[in-house]
Amino acid sequence: MGQWAHHDRTLPARGTESPQGPALSRLLGARLTTFGDGAATLEIDVREELLQQNGFLHGGVLSYAADNALTFAAGTTLGAAVLTGGFSIQYLRPATGRTLAARATVVHTGRRQAVVRCDLRIVGDDGTETLCAVAQGTVLSAQPT
Amino acid sequence: MGQWAHHDRTLPARGTESPQGPALSRLLGARLTTFGDGAATLEIDVREELLQQNGFLHGGVLSYAADNALTFAAGTTLGAAVLTGGFSIQYLRPATGRTLAARATVVHTGRRQAVVRCDLRIVGDDGTETLCAVAQGTVLSAQPT
Amino acid sequence: MGQWAHHDRTLPARGTESPQGPALSRLLGARLTTFGDGAATLEIDVREELLQQNGFLHGGVLSYAADNALTFAAGTTLGAAVLTGGFSIQYLRPATGRTLAARATVVHTGRRQAVVRCDLRIVGDDGTETLCAVAQGTVLSAQPT
Amino acid sequence: MGQWAHHDRTLPARGTESPQGPALSRLLGARLTTFGDGAATLEIDVREELLQQNGFLHGGVLSYAADNALTFAAGTTLGAAVLTGGFSIQYLRPATGRTLAARATVVHTGRRQAVVRCDLRIVGDDGTETLCAVAQGTVLSAQPT
Repeated sequence: MGQWAHHDRTLPARGTESPQGPALSRLLGARLTTFGDGAATLEIDVREELLQQNGFLHGGVLSYAADNALTFAAGTTLGAAVLTGGFSIQYLRPATGRTLAARATVVHTGRRQAVVRCDLRIVGDDGTETLCAVAQGTVLSAQPT
Repeated sequence: MGQWAHHDRTLPARGTESPQGPALSRLLGARLTTFGDGAATLEIDVREELLQQNGFLHGGVLSYAADNALTFAAGTTLGAAVLTGGFSIQYLRPATGRTLAARATVVHTGRRQAVVRCDLRIVGDDGTETLCAVAQGTVLSAQPT
Repeated sequence: MGQWAHHDRTLPARGTESPQGPALSRLLGARLTTFGDGAATLEIDVREELLQQNGFLHGGVLSYAADNALTFAAGTTLGAAVLTGGFSIQYLRPATGRTLAARATVVHTGRRQAVVRCDLRIVGDDGTETLCAVAQGTVLSAQPT
Repeated sequence: MGQWAHHDRTLPARGTESPQGPALSRLLGARLTTFGDGAATLEIDVREELLQQNGFLHGGVLSYAADNALTFAAGTTLGAAVLTGGFSIQYLRPATGRTLAARATVVHTGRRQAVVRCDLRIVGDDGTETLCAVAQGTVLSAQPT
């Protein structure tokens, strides 16, 4: 085990299946909809509890989703034992819609770490997608060779 | 109203009171324990639902707490109408303990924006505090003059 | 004039022309090779003075290039009076080659700010390009309406 | 040697001595004024070539200084063989004065990496110091055990 593992690393058996175990994912209603080949998509359906007082999806939900999507994407190249080092997120516009989709893509992977970018889009009731935040982060392998 | 407000801005009437309204804060059990003079502290009691599978506090909870503490701290200098622009978080070590305390401090505030740092500490059962993540972010005023 | 402008904003008359004035750009040999439509490319030829002791392009040159490319790209959408708020950069691999090309693209622009991503590639002697760092930042308009 | 080392790692024999070798440091006039015990200070005297067109110290100089100060501070705890993973910088106000002082402090160090913060201050002609940017980054050991 690594030294500062904060994240769920119970990677799913199949890409379209939700990760087992992490109660927080269930609490927030997060599901992993794609997983493999250096990419992962985490989706969260918008519901009353996840909004702030103006009716927008709470920023904390966006940062939670970015953090997790980055970690899962890196898991596809580094293996299940990964440690998220950190990330940076910039908010673009208020997120209003039906579903948040955080899609992370590995931009570089080495033996020891992967650097990952994440686009956070909100899917509206009519199916249109709007970019509402972007993130970039680093994930380390928990089993350095 | 600003253009990309993702955050709760129902600032508390008193510094030691929890923000009213945000359902997500209630869902996660977050409370604002200090608020004023360019600083804010958000606390979250550790409970089963907030852990990942190794028994550590989930990284997504840390990023949620950083995001909110930064926003509240900036609210003490910019006023209630603020827009969080983004932040960067680095994880240091696994967070195990009783309570997460995210303390944010404004390092500079202008008319248009504040830059804020946040230390995330976990309070153990014996009361000892351990730094488990650090963050740095930018919050904009929603009412530029 | 804005309040924390650190950057050259003498935008070029033509996209393929080097910015006039900034002595630091001349010192480092930076030239703006594309400029317009939400994007900008800054190129720096690798030379002895810009290497660290292992013969790789110095990280400080990469961060300088990212910072400037982000600022110029935002200038194409926000106008010449911009203030760089900050950025995050992740290094991927050692940069060895002939020319550094920092290409920045605006991912979102509003009235008050633009969020920009930057890919830093090193062009080898054989013309191949290798991604060596990625950055993401925020640039504010110095003339809020 | 590590895989993505962009930085000077010719650490000084004495804390108050400038690093040997790095031509870029000489080009910019950077000197290491303190070095040891988890901290390092890099100073750069302001001169005409380092200003942008409004007479402020160029943002690229600030990011260069942050990057290097972070790396040197981590070298005091991780040893000379370090790889800078990345960093985030936020600009606070225009930097006008006599000397830039970038002081970096390690906030946490493990076997594999250090997380470091940096305050960038400008020293005026009257000796007063003004905070003009803050940074936060990660440095990895190039010799994982």
